[in-house]
Amino acid sequence: MGDMTRVVVVGGSAAGMAAAAKAKRVDPSLDVIVFEKGGYVSYAPCGIPYYISGLVRDIDELVYYKLNYFIEKRGLDVRIHHLVTDIDPDNKVVYVKDLKNGNEYSVSYDKLMLATGGVPIKPPIDGVDLDGIHTLRLLEDGYSFRARVNKAKTVAIVGAGYIGIEVAEALRSLNKRVLVFEMLDQVMPSLDKEAAKLVEEELVRNSVELHLGEKVVAFEGGEEVKKIVTTKDSYPVDLVLMAVGVKPNVDLARRIGVELGETGAIKVNEMMETNIMDIYAGGDNTEAINLVTGKPTYIPLAPAANKMGRVAGENMAGGEARFPGVVGTSIVKAFDLEIGKTGLSLREALEYGFDAVAVDIWHGVKSHYYPGFSKMYLRLVADRDTHRVLGIQAVGREGVLARVNTVATALMAGMRTEELKMLDLAYAPPFAPVWDPIIVAANVVERYY
Amino acid sequence: MGDMTRVVVVGGSAAGMAAAAKAKRVDPSLDVIVFEKGGYVSYAPCGIPYYISGLVRDIDELVYYKLNYFIEKRGLDVRIHHLVTDIDPDNKVVYVKDLKNGNEYSVSYDKLMLATGGVPIKPPIDGVDLDGIHTLRLLEDGYSFRARVNKAKTVAIVGAGYIGIEVAEALRSLNKRVLVFEMLDQVMPSLDKEAAKLVEEELVRNSVELHLGEKVVAFEGGEEVKKIVTTKDSYPVDLVLMAVGVKPNVDLARRIGVELGETGAIKVNEMMETNIMDIYAGGDNTEAINLVTGKPTYIPLAPAANKMGRVAGENMAGGEARFPGVVGTSIVKAFDLEIGKTGLSLREALEYGFDAVAVDIWHGVKSHYYPGFSKMYLRLVADRDTHRVLGIQAVGREGVLARVNTVATALMAGMRTEELKMLDLAYAPPFAPVWDPIIVAANVVERYY
Repeated sequence: MGDMTRVVVVGGSAAGMAAAAKAKRVDPSLDVIVFEKGGYVSYAPCGIPYYISGLVRDIDELVYYKLNYFIEKRGLDVRIHHLVTDIDPDNKVVYVKDLKNGNEYSVSYDKLMLATGGVPIKPPIDGVDLDGIHTLRLLEDGYSFRARVNKAKTVAIVGAGYIGIEVAEALRSLNKRVLVFEMLDQVMPSLDKEAAKLVEEELVRNSVELHLGEKVVAFEGGEEVKKIVTTKDSYPVDLVLMAVGVKPNVDLARRIGVELGETGAIKVNEMMETNIMDIYAGGDNTEAINLVTGKPTYIPLAPAANKMGRVAGENMAGGEARFPGVVGTSIVKAFDLEIGKTGLSLREALEYGFDAVAVDIWHGVKSHYYPGFSKMYLRLVADRDTHRVLGIQAVGREGVLARVNTVATALMAGMRTEELKMLDLAYAPPFAPVWDPIIVAANVVERYY
Repeated sequence: MGDMTRVVVVGGSAAGMAAAAKAKRVDPSLDVIVFEKGGYVSYAPCGIPYYISGLVRDIDELVYYKLNYFIEKRGLDVRIHHLVTDIDPDNKVVYVKDLKNGNEYSVSYDKLMLATGGVPIKPPIDGVDLDGIHTLRLLEDGYSFRARVNKAKTVAIVGAGYIGIEVAEALRSLNKRVLVFEMLDQVMPSLDKEAAKLVEEELVRNSVELHLGEKVVAFEGGEEVKKIVTTKDSYPVDLVLMAVGVKPNVDLARRIGVELGETGAIKVNEMMETNIMDIYAGGDNTEAINLVTGKPTYIPLAPAANKMGRVAGENMAGGEARFPGVVGTSIVKAFDLEIGKTGLSLREALEYGFDAVAVDIWHGVKSHYYPGFSKMYLRLVADRDTHRVLGIQAVGREGVLARVNTVATALMAGMRTEELKMLDLAYAPPFAPVWDPIIVAANVVERYY
């Protein structure tokens, strides 16, 4: 290796592989090593619900690029089943354990990236470690959960966020009895109650047994989980999915002195540099600036992870890329509904101190006379003082992506509702009405200034 | 009427009715009169192709609001079958003819709006006035064309723009033989050839007989059209649709001294004021600023017409609304394809003097493993010098609206590709891949700077 500059990436999922591939492309002379403790790199955990439902037949389909592609085509040294056990930032050395044979060794680095991702939260509930209680994060998790689903009749899902809802749909499509427990009094806590209510109705319409405001206090069973006990009742179950969220995997970072932000995730600048020289971070272990509030936020979603990774990779190769932040855009399918959000909910906007106002409209997503016409629910949140757009929530049978991405772009540009209502959006009867729902909402909200 | 301030609107389609309704809402004390020479107000000419195909059963479904709604609920004095024959701007009087009984009278105004719309271009071709040669603009046009379609076996469409293509699809769904003649060597001249080619392939795949680069030089027949003669050949036909575009209906405006712009349409400022005091204009008779080029453009599409109308209406009622302009966003369905465009094509960008570069990508519109996966063609045009986004063209089986509207928003914000590639766009396997096609294109285009 000698004079070669070496980049070491800790973790081979979205951010890590994006960083490694980008660094090598920018500077092919680099020696780029990726250590991944699991057996897969570059995969799509978001596809796991569709593997569970059987829409995706083979779990390997969730892999974007095979290991060999990175090694042979991209010239990366990717080592799976390798755990980074420690890092010495002063001497710029990482300590690694080969999990297949137990061998330990060290490798020096010039630039290092922490792409250790997130880990599913497992709250300290009695019996949470019983057999039959799963989380979904790694492909291996999907594989083992699906294997258990076949012989289960009743499945409990704890947590009614994105993953909980997607898996509920998957399990209903397999005709399983599905109980969803959410300790809050609504599903999808990032939505305001009005939008969440529409999702709840869709779940119930599809025979999901929804238990809101019901906290799980214990799991019971012998070796295997048999019963879930809540603040209200207890329920026999065959299988449990814990889907109560993700937290940043920062044990190693904290141990070596990498600064964490107030969100608990790693703090970086726009270049994806941590407080320690030559150590970068990105992905689900790292916080990002919410461009609506200007404050750090922890939103562990793949698009941001990929972008952070690419920026870190470019900079480790000597570039000057910048990651500006996020506005918190997301979309999820729940049976026949599309649910999207970008920016802040009204509740969030008020919490952040905005003089926020929200308007709710129901408006056609295509021309009223076109077959398949349906209406979309759209809540627009704006600042009464500055008229700045703060966010939207959209729920409908189609067309949600277009509205959410349009407003996400407006948020990143810092647009006011005066500008939003003048957007030159596309119109044709099969796709959109002449007054797009976004523009209608932007016109209506002005009445409340 | 006495002291009441009177607003007179000439023309009752999109811009006119939007103006009238807005003016009355802003100031309910206004006396608002709309003169419409046809029999309908507030209708959707863009829906006519779907009436022809039968997807829309009754032509009345294309009317947004019935006449009585405007009169009884909105308090407007709407007079259909009334033609404004002249205007005296010095004395602020309009001269009107009631087409039902031939009565002529005059009405004074305080504020006047010219919403005379556009008229289909009928080029001076031999025989162009034969029976059986139609245009589509008014609902009445749709009604009479559809009545003729039933007994026609072979229909020729002259012009391969939006309307020509939509009607071709409608007629093929009725199993008519359809010949499309376009004198240019591509369909949809606002697209670059590469995108147009994809549309052409879809038309041919659906048995539309496409004659590109073939100019119509004569129509032949006795009273009724029987044959269409082109620069290459002649073809027996039963019915003809002329769909070669729309021009601004500005005869009256020109006659009274309203200034026209270089596009031939009425020139207005951001308030929708013409050069004559208290005369406003908006809709398909009016030009707008293209915010990408900064220059006036004539793009007669309903969303801009509606917005212009609303702005004019607000200002006639004493408001201070502004219409900033357009970026030229459009979408059209052609059989199983969605075709969208916003901003400039490469050809247009070069014509306007930009140091423009274009990249073409084919990228998934959802996750590769999700059922129904398909790829979209996307051309991104950017300025090599400033890196400003100049436009996109998108062609695919789904998801075009989202991409076009997102980039339209970016164009209105004047974004550079560095910003475009950092947009926080929504991701979920059923809707979008983790790297949205827009972001992929924005990354790729940088290689050509």
